[in-house]
Amino acid sequence: MDAEIVSIGTELLRGEVIDTNASYLASQLPLLGIDLYRVTQVGDERGRLVEIFRQAWRRSQLLLTTGGLGPTEDDLTREALSEMLGEELKVDPTLEQGLRGLFALWGREMPSHNIKQATLIPSAQAIPNPRGTAPGWWVEKEGKIVIAMPGPPKEMRRMWEKEVSPRLSQQVKGEIIISRTLKTYSLTEAEVDELVSRSSSPVEIGIYAKPDGIHLRLIARAPKQEEAEERIQQGEACLRQILTGHIWGVDDDTLEGVVGTLLADGGLTLATMESYTGGLLAATLSDAPRSCAYYNGGLVAPPKETSIALGVEAQLLSQYGATSLEVALAMATAARQRLEANIGIGVSGEDAVFIAVEDGRRNRTYHGNYPSSYPEAKRRATIAALFKLRCLLLSPD
Amino acid sequence: MDAEIVSIGTELLRGEVIDTNASYLASQLPLLGIDLYRVTQVGDERGRLVEIFRQAWRRSQLLLTTGGLGPTEDDLTREALSEMLGEELKVDPTLEQGLRGLFALWGREMPSHNIKQATLIPSAQAIPNPRGTAPGWWVEKEGKIVIAMPGPPKEMRRMWEKEVSPRLSQQVKGEIIISRTLKTYSLTEAEVDELVSRSSSPVEIGIYAKPDGIHLRLIARAPKQEEAEERIQQGEACLRQILTGHIWGVDDDTLEGVVGTLLADGGLTLATMESYTGGLLAATLSDAPRSCAYYNGGLVAPPKETSIALGVEAQLLSQYGATSLEVALAMATAARQRLEANIGIGVSGEDAVFIAVEDGRRNRTYHGNYPSSYPEAKRRATIAALFKLRCLLLSPD
Repeated sequence: MDAEIVSIGTELLRGEVIDTNASYLASQLPLLGIDLYRVTQVGDERGRLVEIFRQAWRRSQLLLTTGGLGPTEDDLTREALSEMLGEELKVDPTLEQGLRGLFALWGREMPSHNIKQATLIPSAQAIPNPRGTAPGWWVEKEGKIVIAMPGPPKEMRRMWEKEVSPRLSQQVKGEIIISRTLKTYSLTEAEVDELVSRSSSPVEIGIYAKPDGIHLRLIARAPKQEEAEERIQQGEACLRQILTGHIWGVDDDTLEGVVGTLLADGGLTLATMESYTGGLLAATLSDAPRSCAYYNGGLVAPPKETSIALGVEAQLLSQYGATSLEVALAMATAARQRLEANIGIGVSGEDAVFIAVEDGRRNRTYHGNYPSSYPEAKRRATIAALFKLRCLLLSPD
Repeated sequence: MDAEIVSIGTELLRGEVIDTNASYLASQLPLLGIDLYRVTQVGDERGRLVEIFRQAWRRSQLLLTTGGLGPTEDDLTREALSEMLGEELKVDPTLEQGLRGLFALWGREMPSHNIKQATLIPSAQAIPNPRGTAPGWWVEKEGKIVIAMPGPPKEMRRMWEKEVSPRLSQQVKGEIIISRTLKTYSLTEAEVDELVSRSSSPVEIGIYAKPDGIHLRLIARAPKQEEAEERIQQGEACLRQILTGHIWGVDDDTLEGVVGTLLADGGLTLATMESYTGGLLAATLSDAPRSCAYYNGGLVAPPKETSIALGVEAQLLSQYGATSLEVALAMATAARQRLEANIGIGVSGEDAVFIAVEDGRRNRTYHGNYPSSYPEAKRRATIAALFKLRCLLLSPD
């Protein structure tokens, strides 16, 4: 099935809002076996909307729209679809009742212009939207489908997941599609590309460079669920063999979640002291669910005096300077001891970054240089520290 | 001048890359007085590219493209433009020499397929790209303009700023356009809208809800630079009067930068202790340039035991629980004293957040509830803490 997306809203054409709806839908369509050929962003202008809808209707079997379903004069998706399809807009009594009920629940009278959110054309069915006042539209006509969804991402995503995607997957007969993402580290995109090109994996593979390493997205297609599952498992097994030792996570895994699970499973606790990363390491660690079970806390210590106050020996600082592996190690030890944890991480540095992870017996260190801007360098150093922590946690005693 | 943007790359249609180039260009075009009517994302498929270029060429006076200028077989922007305009692609000797020189500089032989990056059509001029191997194209024909820029955002932005924007602004005669953004807090979008609608400001105003408050973007148009500047100044003065006490920054100001300047100017130092925000307050404060001059550091202290170890009285915790303004104040005081700073911030809380800012004599507190996800709640609490700090810094003694 060929699809296109039309994202509607003048704010998109002013560059004030980034069209994350289109990229979200684009990432979801392959899982239904639907091919996306075009995304168009257009402002709230009726004539232009009708023209774009006409072209899309001619070209594609599936048209997905987001935005323009609000109650104001600028919201023109319903009007433009009705004009494009030559059908009359009418208030649907059930939708009107529901909308009035919603306002009654809020203890407010329904503003008169909201009534347009209760309108339909004869070939449209309403799609429920429990997160807002704008129902979606599902139109089937002449063997083609138009689906209009609201613009706010929370409303759109819920509608996609709960209503649109299940119904579309029933209609797109013939193929089951399953995806799996493998996340690697310590390999370049070119190295992954070369390794993978030599494999005979029975799946489609996309390779993407991300801040936390190279991701491989596997897609398996088959007529039946079991076949698709078998195929993706074969593909994953094949790639795991090729990339052995380089895969740190799958699908929605995050680095902080993966090290968090290792810490929790091992009954270990962690403490940090960071200068170079300025608190980003702590903020990232604490993003993981249940992090308070294993993360004892951290110290953010920019200048030398603070590090000394927090337990780093003054002599070390004068001997090695604030930027050295020795000082990063002393920071890791001070954090571990002061916050009574099993493992400490120290991140020091000015131009270059120095990272140490230690548990009182063993340590892992890293020394790197980032040619990027400071916020980007902070982020890369945080990821490097988490990889070093993972490395220590996975090492045999 | 009417414009449209075509963003090229199959990775956009897979949802693996968000099209930030289009939103960047969309935010820049109004400053040249150019009206953007459409953005299209399309994959690396020659036939579809030619079709979209034909439609855009018919409709618009200016066509901007990004992407598809690389050296591989998938990069088809040059081929499609040459087909659409009916002109032949030829290697340009000067471009070829430059490209070979670049590879020689890197100590590598030029791969044979890179030669396509040295091609032009008769009506195209090359646009320099010091950040990559792909020069842009500037095509003028039949009173219309096509500008092809590379896809990597760093290359595209540099080309836009240094080459394309200055040259376009010369061609778009007649109007000078200046913009200014005012950033407000403690007002809702509706309140700002109502206040502004009663004003008689001589500028166009856009209102945008952002995490750090409501932003107003002022745009002034005039035939001459001085008139546009006068107009924007009048507009700003008018809005400052209406929004008195609510504006915290302009243009590129960040909240952490604004409080950082207040601290540095007052010769004051700051320390933090945070549980609820898990290090994000420290990470945000340290993002500001020169923050090490005034930010003494912070303590990230998730569980009760840690807070006690770091100087919060155990009795307070048992009396009030970990989540109370009393404990937030104790955390602020402990941070200030332990890290020898003038001002301390404490952020506590579990379901709700409790924030205290104190300097040993005065304090400001905040207590809030965020119905959002934890990462979003962390971000909002961090912004609330920075506003409370600003409030204390601006209060008379």
